[in-house]
Amino acid sequence: MLLSALSTDLYELTMIGGYYVKGLSGRATFDLFVRQLPPTRNYLVAAGLEQALDFLESLRFTREEIDYLRTLPALSGLPRDFFDDYLANFRFTGDVSAVEEGTPIFAQEPLLRVTAPLAEAQLVETALIAEVMFPTAVASKASRVVEAAAGRSVMEFGARRAHGIDAGIRAARAAYIAGFDSSSIVEAGKRFGIPLSGTMAHSWVMAFRDEPSAFSAYAEVFGERAVFILDTYDALAAARTIAESGLKPRGVRLDSGDPIATSREVRRIFDAYGLHETAIVASGDLDELRIAEIVASGAPISGFGVGTAISTSSDAPALSGVYKLAEIERDGEMVAVIKKSPGKRTYPGCKQVWRVFRDDVAVEDVLTLAEEAAPANAQPLLKDVMTKGVRLSRPSLDEVRQRCRQRVAQLPGEVRRLVDGKNYRVRITIDS
Amino acid sequence: MLLSALSTDLYELTMIGGYYVKGLSGRATFDLFVRQLPPTRNYLVAAGLEQALDFLESLRFTREEIDYLRTLPALSGLPRDFFDDYLANFRFTGDVSAVEEGTPIFAQEPLLRVTAPLAEAQLVETALIAEVMFPTAVASKASRVVEAAAGRSVMEFGARRAHGIDAGIRAARAAYIAGFDSSSIVEAGKRFGIPLSGTMAHSWVMAFRDEPSAFSAYAEVFGERAVFILDTYDALAAARTIAESGLKPRGVRLDSGDPIATSREVRRIFDAYGLHETAIVASGDLDELRIAEIVASGAPISGFGVGTAISTSSDAPALSGVYKLAEIERDGEMVAVIKKSPGKRTYPGCKQVWRVFRDDVAVEDVLTLAEEAAPANAQPLLKDVMTKGVRLSRPSLDEVRQRCRQRVAQLPGEVRRLVDGKNYRVRITIDS
Repeated sequence: MLLSALSTDLYELTMIGGYYVKGLSGRATFDLFVRQLPPTRNYLVAAGLEQALDFLESLRFTREEIDYLRTLPALSGLPRDFFDDYLANFRFTGDVSAVEEGTPIFAQEPLLRVTAPLAEAQLVETALIAEVMFPTAVASKASRVVEAAAGRSVMEFGARRAHGIDAGIRAARAAYIAGFDSSSIVEAGKRFGIPLSGTMAHSWVMAFRDEPSAFSAYAEVFGERAVFILDTYDALAAARTIAESGLKPRGVRLDSGDPIATSREVRRIFDAYGLHETAIVASGDLDELRIAEIVASGAPISGFGVGTAISTSSDAPALSGVYKLAEIERDGEMVAVIKKSPGKRTYPGCKQVWRVFRDDVAVEDVLTLAEEAAPANAQPLLKDVMTKGVRLSRPSLDEVRQRCRQRVAQLPGEVRRLVDGKNYRVRITIDS
Repeated sequence: MLLSALSTDLYELTMIGGYYVKGLSGRATFDLFVRQLPPTRNYLVAAGLEQALDFLESLRFTREEIDYLRTLPALSGLPRDFFDDYLANFRFTGDVSAVEEGTPIFAQEPLLRVTAPLAEAQLVETALIAEVMFPTAVASKASRVVEAAAGRSVMEFGARRAHGIDAGIRAARAAYIAGFDSSSIVEAGKRFGIPLSGTMAHSWVMAFRDEPSAFSAYAEVFGERAVFILDTYDALAAARTIAESGLKPRGVRLDSGDPIATSREVRRIFDAYGLHETAIVASGDLDELRIAEIVASGAPISGFGVGTAISTSSDAPALSGVYKLAEIERDGEMVAVIKKSPGKRTYPGCKQVWRVFRDDVAVEDVLTLAEEAAPANAQPLLKDVMTKGVRLSRPSLDEVRQRCRQRVAQLPGEVRRLVDGKNYRVRITIDS
């Protein structure tokens, strides 16, 4: 899962070749940030930092990779020593400050600030954007789903609809940070220690001659852990089959139709047979709005399996994540720089993000130059996470998840609202 | 990049454990298909098959993976020999038929048909859906972009916005199949032989004291290959700087603002200085509709860089891809089975997809049982690609790309239309 050094766009290599030839070896600072929030998000949840640091720590060009690069026409103007010395010995030796994973964050606020020799900071642009922005998109969506579920359990089932299995594994981690209770994708369980969950597919039921044999066979093998899928043929008939057979499954899953009406009828059938402990969970094209509706209806559903909406952040599948040069060393001094493209202006200089609290509620953020004094009652969000290429710490995933719960809870209630939420105020003290 | 055997949902493992204990060792056929096309697609382009076959061929449980599985509460009801014998010796030994990569395909048509011992066919569900559906989503979007560009060059620039770098690499391959000329992500170039392209970032310009020094430094290193970015500060001023300096770049890139108006003014400036050969390419939040608009305007733009829209298939980031049991062996005979969930009914039995041609134009597809006779003037789309776990062939990426061009061209023009396209007819002879 470690990314190769070729996880970069061709132009990054062309440019670092050019910097090498022209002797531009001074330091530079780049900011990774989101230009604007998607219309359906009032806040983002930072995630993906640990994978990004893994990449920076392990970044090396293998001989085979260098030999491939030699064959590229675009790099043919570069001298031999660029390949043989410079790339062969390339390491990331820079400093990184970042917003901790699990922290709510807003547009224009750097999630990551890289200060390194210009070429090192440039080469890693593509991978840093991709590896931080996708998990951030998923954690942001997942945070809304957790909010909607209002304490009911939420399970991430989205691997099959993710943009490849690798994306599914990353999505599972991001969803867990944002408060999901479990995931279905086994590799994420092994790699990150995320609790796994799963029930039974329709194909299990179809593999048997009839539903009663399918259910009793499953119960025979898995006993009190069994969770049955109800809607392969007819959900209510299946519920009656279970109740009459004397099986006592831990739960049942509804994956189609109207879960509000069906869950009420299933509950009635189960209760009539004394199956008060058998839980009903729902899945099937759920998102935070549908879940909020189900919760508001009072339907007897105790958990939700959410797939595509989480693993692809389907209503906002990409964030406007960018990585922009903010300052560069000239004659030994760092000089702030700015881009002025229409609609894409940047804020210059080395920055800090402050979160201002009143009675433990976050009331505004302030984006300042790092050298400015701290605003009153404020905490800095950008913290040193890597110095001279060496990572400073490695929090556990459960710490990150805990932190996320606390920090999201510090946002004003009207910012967390799923629909018509209020914008959170980000004050910027820097001239653009 | 090879997927682990744990690239699966927990319930697949629970179920294969259950099949093992209950002795369900007969064969089964599953279909991988899309339930319905997204509103903005009239056809899909099949892709991802080669990665799916790589996964099936290499599927093994390592000892470490098996030891992890032993720790899972959900699997605690399973006997020791399930782990020690069955999983330790697990191989995919099934047969696969598939629609060749690069082929246009429609809803309900199996892209892949797996016939294997039930447990083998079941375990691979999650990975097959994810590994086939994401590339198919990208190739389908990319095919529309290629159509819109009407012969102008199209470059895939989307890795940074993809769902992780791995997704970016898969997207590059899928876009190339659908007719993109090149990609920016270097790892995709190395792995698949895709031509690479790239220009210059705004940060190159910002790294120098002024724009003239930035351009001349780049030209010095890369000579006639240089493609400059114009809009770091002011695109027209930059164009004048280049023209007056006597530089002769191969091209320039516009990444913001209104490319139609700006490209006309830039063209005028360049032409006035005799830079008739300097091409103008555009990028920046482009998709097929914006490109069609630019092409229709007659703007002097000869190529397009497309990012997020391709690498996330942003208007349809997930396809409704499913993998459903179609038949199962009982008493030595294959028996067709059906799922009846509301809105999710399946068609039973082992199927074939036929494409019917009239004068080399595809006029309709027919979804039949495999045993039915071929319709007149029809070609079968499902072909054997793996027998008893052994892959039958491995076409080159350029063959696949060539095939895609031919087969998309065989679709009726009104199906290929970007807006208000006509639905293609898929006739189904099977009772549901």
